[in-house]
Formats: sequence, C-alpha cells, structure tokens
Amino acid sequence: MKQDPADADVISHKLMLRAGIIRQLASGLYTWLPLGLRVLRKIETIIRQEMDATGAQELLMPVVQPAELWQDSGRWEKMGPEMARLQDRHERDFCLGPTHEEVITDLFRREIQSYKELPVNFYQIQTKFRDERRPRFGVMRAREFTMKDAYSFHADQESFDATYQEMYNCYSRILTRMQLDFRAVEADSGNIGGSNSHEFNVLAASGEDTIVYASNGPYAANIEKAEAAAPAARPAASQNMAVVDTPEDKTIAAICQRLNITPDTTVKTLLVRGEEGPIAIILRGDHDLNEIKAGKLPGISQPLSFCTDAEIKKATGVSAGSLGPVNAQVPYLVDREAAALADFVCGANIESQHFTGVNWERDCALEAHQIVDARNVVEGDTAPDGQGELRFLKGIEVGHIFQLGTVYSAAMDANVLDKDGHSLTPIMGCYGMGVTRLVAAVIEQNHDDNGICWPTPLAPFQLHLIALNYQKSDAVKAAADDLYDKCQALGIEVLFDERDERPGVKFADADLIGLPHRIVVGDRGLKNNCVEYKTRRDEKATECSLDTVLDNLTE
Amino acid sequence: MKQDPADADVISHKLMLRAGIIRQLASGLYTWLPLGLRVLRKIETIIRQEMDATGAQELLMPVVQPAELWQDSGRWEKMGPEMARLQDRHERDFCLGPTHEEVITDLFRREIQSYKELPVNFYQIQTKFRDERRPRFGVMRAREFTMKDAYSFHADQESFDATYQEMYNCYSRILTRMQLDFRAVEADSGNIGGSNSHEFNVLAASGEDTIVYASNGPYAANIEKAEAAAPAARPAASQNMAVVDTPEDKTIAAICQRLNITPDTTVKTLLVRGEEGPIAIILRGDHDLNEIKAGKLPGISQPLSFCTDAEIKKATGVSAGSLGPVNAQVPYLVDREAAALADFVCGANIESQHFTGVNWERDCALEAHQIVDARNVVEGDTAPDGQGELRFLKGIEVGHIFQLGTVYSAAMDANVLDKDGHSLTPIMGCYGMGVTRLVAAVIEQNHDDNGICWPTPLAPFQLHLIALNYQKSDAVKAAADDLYDKCQALGIEVLFDERDERPGVKFADADLIGLPHRIVVGDRGLKNNCVEYKTRRDEKATECSLDTVLDNLTE
Repeated sequence: MKQDPADADVISHKLMLRAGIIRQLASGLYTWLPLGLRVLRKIETIIRQEMDATGAQELLMPVVQPAELWQDSGRWEKMGPEMARLQDRHERDFCLGPTHEEVITDLFRREIQSYKELPVNFYQIQTKFRDERRPRFGVMRAREFTMKDAYSFHADQESFDATYQEMYNCYSRILTRMQLDFRAVEADSGNIGGSNSHEFNVLAASGEDTIVYASNGPYAANIEKAEAAAPAARPAASQNMAVVDTPEDKTIAAICQRLNITPDTTVKTLLVRGEEGPIAIILRGDHDLNEIKAGKLPGISQPLSFCTDAEIKKATGVSAGSLGPVNAQVPYLVDREAAALADFVCGANIESQHFTGVNWERDCALEAHQIVDARNVVEGDTAPDGQGELRFLKGIEVGHIFQLGTVYSAAMDANVLDKDGHSLTPIMGCYGMGVTRLVAAVIEQNHDDNGICWPTPLAPFQLHLIALNYQKSDAVKAAADDLYDKCQALGIEVLFDERDERPGVKFADADLIGLPHRIVVGDRGLKNNCVEYKTRRDEKATECSLDTVLDNLTE
Repeated sequence: MKQDPADADVISHKLMLRAGIIRQLASGLYTWLPLGLRVLRKIETIIRQEMDATGAQELLMPVVQPAELWQDSGRWEKMGPEMARLQDRHERDFCLGPTHEEVITDLFRREIQSYKELPVNFYQIQTKFRDERRPRFGVMRAREFTMKDAYSFHADQESFDATYQEMYNCYSRILTRMQLDFRAVEADSGNIGGSNSHEFNVLAASGEDTIVYASNGPYAANIEKAEAAAPAARPAASQNMAVVDTPEDKTIAAICQRLNITPDTTVKTLLVRGEEGPIAIILRGDHDLNEIKAGKLPGISQPLSFCTDAEIKKATGVSAGSLGPVNAQVPYLVDREAAALADFVCGANIESQHFTGVNWERDCALEAHQIVDARNVVEGDTAPDGQGELRFLKGIEVGHIFQLGTVYSAAMDANVLDKDGHSLTPIMGCYGMGVTRLVAAVIEQNHDDNGICWPTPLAPFQLHLIALNYQKSDAVKAAADDLYDKCQALGIEVLFDERDERPGVKFADADLIGLPHRIVVGDRGLKNNCVEYKTRRDEKATECSLDTVLDNLTE
C-alpha cells in the first residue's frame, strides 16, 4: 500500500498492512499474506526448537472443545462473552478454545496413571479464539490468533519449580534469539487461575501493559500486580476536626483548590459492591484504585464492580462526592498510604460538606476496619523490597507463565498414584506465548520512518534483489538472474524484484518490506562489473563487485 | 494401548489409537499426540515443497469467517447443517470455515486489479470444520481436520487449463512421494460447484468411495460421476402386451420369481420430487439409481428426494410396487439401458398387476419422454469411451481438484481489468487435499497384523532403538547411549526405548509403532560387539557389528 491505512492506530499495524504482511477479514480476524506467513513460521521454528530443547513434547489439540470439560473445571459459567460458544447439529454445546487447560488435563487423566511418568510438559502451536470486546492494534489484540501453549504436570513442588524456572529461561532464550528488548515481570494470573505468574513484555511505547521496575533492584511487575511498599509511619495528629461547606465541589481537584491544599493530604472514598452490600475503599486523594488488587480483597463481589449513584445514595444517604470515613454508613477498607495520613481532608457523609483535620483513630474508629494494599503504584514509589525507586515502561505482553497449583488437576480428578499407591494430585504449570502478536511486537521495536527493519532471524527473506530496467537491459537481466540463481544455490532466501517499476518505487518498497540486505543491479554499475549493496539500516549503498557481493550475506 | 479399542471400526483408526497417534476429544474431534504430529508435519512438508515448486504461494486465512461473504456468494443459505455457525458477542453471524472459496475471492477482489497480475495460485494448510452427521473412521471422517486448499485465478481458459494440469501432476507427485497406491478419477464437484473435477483416491478396502476404472483404457471415475456407455441397439418387439396378477409381489425379485424371468428383462419406476410435481425415473430392474447424476436431471427438485408412499398414492392412485410407464400418471425419465429393452415387464399402474411383453413406442409413447443416464454403472459395463470393461475399487478420497469457472468470481464481483481496460471475470480453480485424512490412508495401505509399517518419508522417526536391561546393565547402557548420541550427530531421527519393560513388550510396541528400522541392544550380542538389526518388514533380525550397524540407515 502506498498510503497509510486509515484504520490502523499503531505503527506495527500500519506497517503490517502497508508491507503486505496481513489483511483484515473482519474485526479481529486477519489473513496472513505470503510475506507475513514466512515471518510467522520463523517465529514458530525458534519457539519449537527452544521448547524441544527443554524436553517438552509437541502435540496438537482441537480448536473446538466440548462444554462438558469446561463444566468439569467450573469455567463454563465463569468465562464471559470472550469465550465464543456454538452448538453442533445435535445441539450439543462447544466453544472455540480460548485456552486449553481443560483439554490437556482431560488427556492427562485418561493417559497418565503413575507418578513414574512425571514430570511431563506438553505444548502446541495452535489457533485460539477470544471474542475481544474491542479488537484493536491489528494482530496485537485480535480475536483469532496463534499461540504456543504448554502445560506441565508434576508430582511435587520441587519438580514444578525446576520446570517453571526452565520455562522462564526458555522464554528468555526465545525472545533473545528474536533480538527483542524485553522484561520478565511478576503478573496477575487473571482467569487462568493459580497463584504466581510472570509476564514477558516486549518494550514498546504502544504497549498496553504498564511495567513497573525498580531503578536499582530486582523488582519488576505488571502494574496490575505491583505491590505498594509499606508507607512511612503516620505523623501525630496536630489539628482539630472541622467542617467546611463545599457546595458544587465534586472532585478532589475542586476541594484542593477551595482549601488551597494538595491531593496527597486528602482521601477519596469509592463504593464497590460487596458480598453483603456496599463496601467503601478509601485511597489517598492522589492515588488510583488498582482494580485487580482490589478485586481480591475480602468481601468484595466478583468481578469487581462499582456502585451506581443510586446505590450510593441508598446506602449512605449522600452522593459520591461527599463520602468519607467519619460516621461511615458502610464498612470500609483503607489503603495503606491513606491510613498513614494525619490531619487529612475527606467527605463528611453530609451533602456538600467536607471535614478537615481528620485523624483515623480519633475520628474514624479505624480499628474496626482493614488496612489494605489497593492502589496503583506510581513512579517514584519505593520498591516493595526496599531496593530502589519504581519506574514505569510500556510493554506488549508476549508471554505469560503460570503457577496453576492443583486448580485444574483437582477440579478434574486428574490424579495419579504415588510410590505408595496413594492418590496424588499433580501440580500444574502453564506457559503461553503469543505467536502472531510477536510479529507486531517485533515491528514495534524494529522500524524507522521508511518501514520495517527485520531482525535477521525473523526476516521473511534475507536479501532484496532489485533489478533496474530488467525488462529492457540484457546486461541487467543476465546479471540479476545469475545472482538470483547463485542465491538459490547458496541457500540465501531472496526476494527478487524484477517488476517494471521506477527505481524510486522499488527502493521505497524495499525499505517498507525491510529485508536485512539489499542489492541493486543497474546498467550504470554493471559497466564496472559492480552492483550496489546496503543493509536495511545503512544510510547509503556502497559499490561492490558483482563477483563478491554475495560474500556480505554468506559471511 | 494393549487392547484393540472397542469403538474403532477400521484398521487405521485402531492402529492410530493403539500406537499413540491420536486420541479422541469428542465425536469427530481428535488430539494429535507427539508421535502422530510428527507424521502430520512430514506430510505437510511434502505438500508444501511440491506446491511451492509449482509457484503457488502459501498464506493463511482465518478459521472463523463472517457470514457476509457467504451471503455474497449465495452459499450462506445453501450450506446445510454441515456448516457450523456461531454468533459473536455483538450477535453478528460467523461460521467455522468448511472451505475458503469466499475468503480467498474476497482477498482477491480487494488486492488484484489487473490481468497483468494473473495467473495466481494461493494455498494454505489450515484447520477446517465440517459438522458431519455421522463422524466415523477416526480422522478419516472427522469434524475438525487439517486441509491443504489452493485457489487459482486466471485471465483465460488456456491459463486455467495449464494450472489445473499442473495441480493434477503436483498431486500425483505428492502421493507418489508418500509411496501411496492411488488413482486419479473424474468426480462430481458437490457443493463446491463448478463443472469438472478430479478426485485422488488412495486405494483401500475400507474406503468409502467406489472408483470405477476401465480394464483396458484410460477411463476412471468415482461411481457417483461415472457415465454409463451407450447401450446396444434395442431389439424389435416380438411379444404382445399382457396383464398378470402379482398379488403381494412388492419387489423385482418377487416378480422375477413368479414369472421365472431375470431382473434385466424388467423395469422399475421410482418417484422423485420434481419442480412441478412428482417425476418418475425408470431403470432396468437390475440397476440402481445414481442419485448424483439423477439430481442433475431437468425438472428435479434440489436436492434429490424421493416421494413418500402417500405422495405416490396421491399422484398415481397405486402404491410404489405397481408403478410403470404404461398409462403413466406422471411425466417420466427413462434410463438409457431401460429404454433399450424390448418385451419387458413393468408395473401396470393398477394395484397388484404387472404387464409383460411391453414395448416402448408401441405401449408407452416413449417419444414424449426423455432418455437419460441415471444409473450406477456396474462391473462389466463397457467403458463410456468404449475402451475396456469397467472394474471397481474402493478408495479413500484424499484430494480433489475443481474447475470452478466463474462461479465465485462472478457472484462476488472479483473482476480485474483486461489489456483493453475492460472488466474481466477470472476463471478459478480450487485444489483440496486432506492432510489429517492422509495419515489414516497411509496406514490403511501400510500395516500388517502387528501394527503400522510407515513408509520412510512419513515415519515419525526412522529408527527404533531398543535397549534391553538398560537399567541394570552398564554395557547395554553405554552402547545404547552411544548409538543414540551417534544418531543425533548423524541426523538420524531416533526413538529410544530405554524403559524398564520386558523385551516382548518392547518388541510388540516397536512393531505397533512401525518405524522403518529397529536396533536392539542386549547383553548377549554385546559380548561379540554386536546388536540386532531389522527393518519393520523383515521377519527376522540379523546380527550386526555395533560399529557399522548405523550404516544401514545412512546408506
């Protein structure tokens, strides 16, 4: 494509359309064109080689999965509209596999009966379907996509830990071979379940994930998961509580302006739905709620949802902007940083009034409530392990490894016999990597104003061979055909541009497609038995002897 | 598996389960286990190499397809329950692609504008889903399966013919490389549409297709498609028509017994639904209706369906067993062989009566009706080109190439500009090959009583290396480990059986899995620095020097 496509928001999506890597069939559904498929296959090959090297075994499970297995695991009802469901001609329920824990656990329970056969690690590279609410960024958040997913089963924690570490290392090797700048961080395990997990993020400004890392220490986590460090000790109370009228002040910013204070001396009160009615979560005024962490707090209804204005009014008698911990009508949870304030400002639980100089024990009976970690960390926070300050980066999640424990093996009765003949519920891990998404991530990190700059291991071809005036010049045709044949003989993957197009068009297309090496054969150079050679990243081409130019590639 | 699985009807299905090639997830849905996946990949590689050699370009289209494209082509309503449909979260209609004509034609119309870019041939190896009414024979008739499908576009018939022939040759090369005994035959094109097509059948007694071929000539067709030769000239009438009472004679056999005649001197009359009411099809008594050919006859309702007893009674006043061409109440079509009879027997259109000595022009006003080819050919028939006699074989359809004409390109407005700037509707072909089904077909042709006998190009591994007493004998362990390492160094694909199992179990498993070469390392042989070697087809093993045994494989 000559023009930037109108409907592409991120650079990788634009370049994938323009360079003929993909075409959209429907929202979130993409056809991989010949050039793109070659990249996809190279990524798959690297993944396969590294997975095989760990002793994992490749298999292939169906895309369409029967509902019964998901009922067994308890996820048939739990999975939302993201899971696409269908009925067969006999009205039996099926889904398009968004993931394969159920299928592999079913296979395991039918095939593996003894601890002696453990550990095992099975993987596949297969199509997945997730009916995203808002597919976007091309293959970065598509509905149908290719994923490498692996599942391991273990007789004990030690065996699991070793494989989890091995997968962590394997993922690092895979992404290193792809020449990607990435970070492995602690992450939330979402609806896959289990306890700990690590995400592998490729760094990119367009990334949807915020990665938190310590400036001077080992801590790294997705912001969804990142713990806040314990706050400094609370100062002593120094003010008396007083009431101020705050008519029409609906926001923290408005209150701060009226009182000439900063938000970090205020608290805000959010009402969410709890199992036994509304629960308030109280944060320092300058902090944001972390919905993932908050969703796991005691008493909160799953999934986390906010009370409507009507529900707030009914539960408290006032509207959202006037809520606060003094004389609270509902139970509340206090974020640690909010709990570390003294002499703070908060809503008065009276319409259009706030309190100043509030102190927890004195004014709010804090001891009856829980202090929790419910906020998003912010840049500059101390790392939770105390080593360094937190910094943020944007990343694209390309891999995620999960510690599943016995969530699936227990729910699905996938037990084996241990050495004493007793039943043993295996510990499981699962290890996902987004194959199609990786192509976009690679481009996000490897492009310039003119197009893609493929890393050598992933380039669809190694060499762009451009013949100028090929249709009319016998000399060009002879030299270019000869180079092409030599490339074939040497096993150099070559894309041969012998189109009847202007040189400018050909050069622009070569930059757009972004193969690592470019050779241009033209009449002018051939007079001296020369061609032009450059790498994709070189500014200028150099004259090379026709006889030795391929040495640049074979070396 | 030690035992034959109860639910497998054909040998390939049994062996695929027993040898650990596949496992069933649900009816018609299979997981490919590690051993099976290796075979699948080898088949894919051969297909890919041969397709690439023809200049076809590989791409990858989505499994999930939007309804709009199928509405464009007119097939959304036409496809029956075999096409699995689903709605996304926004209640938009999609299907699981049973085939990809619509998607590729849509891609073509958006990307290719000029005759200069033709011909093109795109292929993919992708998952398909067809919700078979009765999935059976394992992966031979599964619901989810892998297919190679190619689609070509041409500016003129000559270009199409060349590619069609090239694909025909390519398919022959692919199946030859797989060492399969196969036949390419003319076939019906079913709901893919278009005019001519050829099927590639792997010969096997368990095959669902009947292949018709000439004993001494080039003719070969699927029985669904096979034309009957023109019959011999009709003899002159020699009998007068007479009526006989045939109480309780409901079948041709009963009539023949009563009258002491053979079925080939009778006709039978079948009533099918026509566009303007019932139509009779009249066949010689010993012939069967060919429903595919009959479904294409003029005036027949689509798809072909038979009148019920009530419909027959209403249209003719008599029941099915008494129908005939004399004084017929409905229009009829006469098969050519039936039309070539003189002095024949038929139902009298009077309950429990038949006529003998019937002659067409004299008694039935044949000139008002059409003579057609509506029967299945039978063994011994003359070939339609007059060269040789027809014989039958059973086959498994593994490939099918179609001449689509402009069915899809016209319906979907996939036009290009010709050299004069006028609109040109490209001629299309499509070329399918059943990748997963091929694995079953290969096994149907390559097994013995003990298990699979893989052809070398498709074997999951080349060598089965069996170490006896590996756990206890240092000598066996050292020699076997050394052989294994040498295989790895030499690039010999080796399956190493170092399990703590009895020799009999190991030998039986080796035969079942069926790798081409087997080496057994045991203490007894090692005393003479020897191991046992045999191929899968050898009855007995021979002693070989440990130092030279791998030469059998590298040669």
